Amino acid sequence: MDKNLEIDKIDGTDLKILAILLDDAHLPYTEIGKRVHVSGGTVHVRMKKLEQLGIVKGAQLLVDQTKLGWDISAFLGIYLDKSSMYEDVAVQLEKIPEVVNIHYTTGIYSIFAKIVCRDTQHLRQVLHDKIQKVSGIQRTETFISLEERIARSIPLDV
Amino acid sequence: MDKNLEIDKIDGTDLKILAILLDDAHLPYTEIGKRVHVSGGTVHVRMKKLEQLGIVKGAQLLVDQTKLGWDISAFLGIYLDKSSMYEDVAVQLEKIPEVVNIHYTTGIYSIFAKIVCRDTQHLRQVLHDKIQKVSGIQRTETFISLEERIARSIPLDV
Amino acid sequence: MDKNLEIDKIDGTDLKILAILLDDAHLPYTEIGKRVHVSGGTVHVRMKKLEQLGIVKGAQLLVDQTKLGWDISAFLGIYLDKSSMYEDVAVQLEKIPEVVNIHYTTGIYSIFAKIVCRDTQHLRQVLHDKIQKVSGIQRTETFISLEERIARSIPLDV
Amino acid sequence: MDKNLEIDKIDGTDLKILAILLDDAHLPYTEIGKRVHVSGGTVHVRMKKLEQLGIVKGAQLLVDQTKLGWDISAFLGIYLDKSSMYEDVAVQLEKIPEVVNIHYTTGIYSIFAKIVCRDTQHLRQVLHDKIQKVSGIQRTETFISLEERIARSIPLDV
Amino acid sequence: MDKNLEIDKIDGTDLKILAILLDDAHLPYTEIGKRVHVSGGTVHVRMKKLEQLGIVKGAQLLVDQTKLGWDISAFLGIYLDKSSMYEDVAVQLEKIPEVVNIHYTTGIYSIFAKIVCRDTQHLRQVLHDKIQKVSGIQRTETFISLEERIARSIPLDV
Amino acid sequence: MDKNLEIDKIDGTDLKILAILLDDAHLPYTEIGKRVHVSGGTVHVRMKKLEQLGIVKGAQLLVDQTKLGWDISAFLGIYLDKSSMYEDVAVQLEKIPEVVNIHYTTGIYSIFAKIVCRDTQHLRQVLHDKIQKVSGIQRTETFISLEERIARSIPLDV
Amino acid sequence: MDKNLEIDKIDGTDLKILAILLDDAHLPYTEIGKRVHVSGGTVHVRMKKLEQLGIVKGAQLLVDQTKLGWDISAFLGIYLDKSSMYEDVAVQLEKIPEVVNIHYTTGIYSIFAKIVCRDTQHLRQVLHDKIQKVSGIQRTETFISLEERIARSIPLDV
Amino acid sequence: MDKNLEIDKIDGTDLKILAILLDDAHLPYTEIGKRVHVSGGTVHVRMKKLEQLGIVKGAQLLVDQTKLGWDISAFLGIYLDKSSMYEDVAVQLEKIPEVVNIHYTTGIYSIFAKIVCRDTQHLRQVLHDKIQKVSGIQRTETFISLEERIARSIPLDV
Repeated sequence: MDKNLEIDKIDGTDLKILAILLDDAHLPYTEIGKRVHVSGGTVHVRMKKLEQLGIVKGAQLLVDQTKLGWDISAFLGIYLDKSSMYEDVAVQLEKIPEVVNIHYTTGIYSIFAKIVCRDTQHLRQVLHDKIQKVSGIQRTETFISLEERIARSIPLDV
Repeated sequence: MDKNLEIDKIDGTDLKILAILLDDAHLPYTEIGKRVHVSGGTVHVRMKKLEQLGIVKGAQLLVDQTKLGWDISAFLGIYLDKSSMYEDVAVQLEKIPEVVNIHYTTGIYSIFAKIVCRDTQHLRQVLHDKIQKVSGIQRTETFISLEERIARSIPLDV
Repeated sequence: MDKNLEIDKIDGTDLKILAILLDDAHLPYTEIGKRVHVSGGTVHVRMKKLEQLGIVKGAQLLVDQTKLGWDISAFLGIYLDKSSMYEDVAVQLEKIPEVVNIHYTTGIYSIFAKIVCRDTQHLRQVLHDKIQKVSGIQRTETFISLEERIARSIPLDV
Repeated sequence: MDKNLEIDKIDGTDLKILAILLDDAHLPYTEIGKRVHVSGGTVHVRMKKLEQLGIVKGAQLLVDQTKLGWDISAFLGIYLDKSSMYEDVAVQLEKIPEVVNIHYTTGIYSIFAKIVCRDTQHLRQVLHDKIQKVSGIQRTETFISLEERIARSIPLDV
Repeated sequence: MDKNLEIDKIDGTDLKILAILLDDAHLPYTEIGKRVHVSGGTVHVRMKKLEQLGIVKGAQLLVDQTKLGWDISAFLGIYLDKSSMYEDVAVQLEKIPEVVNIHYTTGIYSIFAKIVCRDTQHLRQVLHDKIQKVSGIQRTETFISLEERIARSIPLDV
Repeated sequence: MDKNLEIDKIDGTDLKILAILLDDAHLPYTEIGKRVHVSGGTVHVRMKKLEQLGIVKGAQLLVDQTKLGWDISAFLGIYLDKSSMYEDVAVQLEKIPEVVNIHYTTGIYSIFAKIVCRDTQHLRQVLHDKIQKVSGIQRTETFISLEERIARSIPLDV
Repeated sequence: MDKNLEIDKIDGTDLKILAILLDDAHLPYTEIGKRVHVSGGTVHVRMKKLEQLGIVKGAQLLVDQTKLGWDISAFLGIYLDKSSMYEDVAVQLEKIPEVVNIHYTTGIYSIFAKIVCRDTQHLRQVLHDKIQKVSGIQRTETFISLEERIARSIPLDV
Repeated sequence: MDKNLEIDKIDGTDLKILAILLDDAHLPYTEIGKRVHVSGGTVHVRMKKLEQLGIVKGAQLLVDQTKLGWDISAFLGIYLDKSSMYEDVAVQLEKIPEVVNIHYTTGIYSIFAKIVCRDTQHLRQVLHDKIQKVSGIQRTETFISLEERIARSIPLDV
């Protein structure tokens, strides 16, 4: 079968480790081990396997960006000159550090991106001097985030 | 000043630790300590401080959800019956496990949410039996993600 | 597994019969049997099985409706008062004979329907006296089909 | 008169046969004959006439595609670079097997198409590698079908 | 046949008279008679017949409204609270003298109307004090006409 | 003053004649004269003056086009490749006999046009073979008129 | 005439004074007098007259709000529950100090307003706690201004 | 810090002067001085400082433009061929005297401009002969202002 389902290769212990880490990804392995009743070394082995299977791709620290002086997060709905330019445009967007997330989507926008900026002046620079200089982008719509409510992982137990 | 800037209270060592963890959030503290030339205990102390300041809010494991059998991620642009219902609607959305991200936004949608589903049939259940039962939601537009390109943190060095 | 996949229960002969019928659904079973090198009775048995599995749901005669005096086919994008009314609205739409197809969809419309009419005056009756009388429908957008180019089945061999 | 109305050339028996087949297109002709009180041979003759008049264009088997592993049906609203490119674009779309229906429409989209896919990954291939490579297509909006409610023929008796 | 076609009841002389009047509707009947080689009385008789058949509904003087001090013509795309309110809303709109044309349409607007006003202040009164007081109207979009290019009748000879 | 107001040059008799003709434009001048208590010759003189001032531009016969076999009237909202192409596009549209009205408008469409067609097949020809071949037109939205409610002139007495 | 044109009551000196003040509204009257070759007292008298005629309504200091810590200006396109609620909504909006400009407009929005805020958090408060609490407002679209290019008065000499 | 905040360099007297002038910008300095209990010379000095800091950029006379014969104010939402053309387009727009305000904005329009015109004919000239001749502008949407409600400055005391 051409599906990338690797779920057959993992067992209940793997899933328990995943569930704990999806909740709090920077727990030390020893702590995780205690909760799952295995050694820290076993956690290490299981995580290595999950990484080799490509199930675990890494972890991301969650920070309150406004407390670090980054006042603005915004979503961009991006219209391309032609939908077929997605590949080229995505490669260029990746090089802009303020672009933190890129999705290729169905719907009215070809690309959905998330950017972070310090203030309105910075937003102007990112949009005008960086994003809109990307060849292939026709225009963008900007949705400023006024509040991020929840940001959690897939619910393994649903 | 009524701003929540806590950046004055952190030093270069804090920033180095943050930068490393933004790149790979599940490194053990001992490993981080080696790179920053402090002890694992110091990393622990600094992280505690960053957490107490509210700068670090946690960490999130990054998984390849399709390999776990979750075929669909989608963004929802949500129109409310009235914009003033945001608070109520957000509380109800939080209770739906398939909703993994909620933003209150400017622009044509009042709320921007992200959902994850196993397949089209599951998507139908989430939209029809859960989201659209939330009182205050008028209608939703769904953008299926066909590819997630990058998902990274704020660029501390820009 | 909670998936409705029945594909494991059918064999190559079933698939060949399906492929022939997807191409021309009103061939007599004897004719189909000749092509697949089985008896007409076997085709009958196999089709019974495919129907019992729910894979085959019936067949639809394709007619040139304009030659029968039905000048207009149109797609309707339907906005509901609230998305949650889908179930009720669909039941009412089913009772209108000129509505020949109903889909529950993601995107800006809650329901996507296809209607057929004899002429503009008939279209006015269907929209004004039937569709727009359905409680729960807020408004509709009408896309008149000026030409139907192809209408074929899923490509079993892709 | 320049109209293609062929309705004058058919009689009540033809209409009864049509009505039965519009309901269930894969009935054997002998069965249909019994219901209309003519021989199976007469049904055959009448159907030949209806086909020669171009009224009957064929028949289409109705299958539950999800049970065959095709999880996604979607409608595409297609914007062209210029409306005048319809002819060229339609010819290219016809060559893509996953495109099962094409309509040339009034309204905001120039072309309305229906596609079928196995899963999100397949949808990505069809949109990105096939549809958006068609020259003349500017961009597409995708409406995923979450449920097909009815799919029936023109109501001959309305 | 339930069609309102009356075209079989009129002859070539009728059509010639119609064609002349579609070009210039206020010609005296004697003048028309000369061109068609019949008496003015015959023109009168034929016009009476065309009026009785309901083919001719009247005539409309074309004036340059800006020279009479009416600076603004505008089209209104009208959204209703519910599409089903068309009949009620149309009756109310008819009572507003500045509304000179009303169409019930497919597409994003339920009603398409044309209004005429003396200046911006008058436009404000018509929209705010008359149109938007009509119960059943949700909101309107206004398209100011900057130039009317042609205004002619159906091309009888196409 | 650069305004084209000619209203100072006309008197009460002119206005009475205008008012009568705006109501029914094909009344013979003798009949109008009786109502206004002047001779038919005077009506003729006054109408000549109103024509020379450019106030009266002609008259238009109102016909029930469906009774003449023209089933469809539609409004077109036309998007241009660039707004600056209006002049060129308008000249080309004028040459298409089925285009009976053209307005240059503010709002989302550059041009608002009205077309008349015999049936859906004719509509397809007009849109595909005529309108969309006009260079400068990017795309069009079509609003089919399902009913024309009123069609009257400016209310001289408001 | 019902027009509010007061232009006949002002002379060349008035216009010169207006032109100078439209360029720089906080010049002392003595300075203006020198340029127009009249006394400061005469400027005072003329300005009083222009104010009494209602031509001059006041003056507005132009400040660089970002230098005063107000980082965000935004335009709001406001949709009302019903267009007829304009009057009520406008009165409520006037009471919100951050709303600095209100227009009643044609087009897709009923009201066009401008707001000013200190930062994203303040924008959230203004939108969520003030604007969206106004009864009669359905929803708003926000356009953040990234740069104000020019802000000048009507060109008296065009 | 790279912020342009100059607020630390101004004191309470400066703020009081600003507050008075934001309310009525054409008060003579001597009058302002009386209210703040300083000399007119001191007001002059403080205003010079505020101008040198770039906080005060000038002042704008507020006039009732309709009384001067300018009947129409309109907002333009401007779509560019490409968002990256903003700089070029803005420079060209600045040269059109009827364009009185230009904003570079997030959202569906790249540029938000305000224009003033004498009447509809003038509006046609400005849009057709000036704005739409600007290279880089794809199309514009026009929102006519029917009433300006308030036009005030930032609320220094919020």
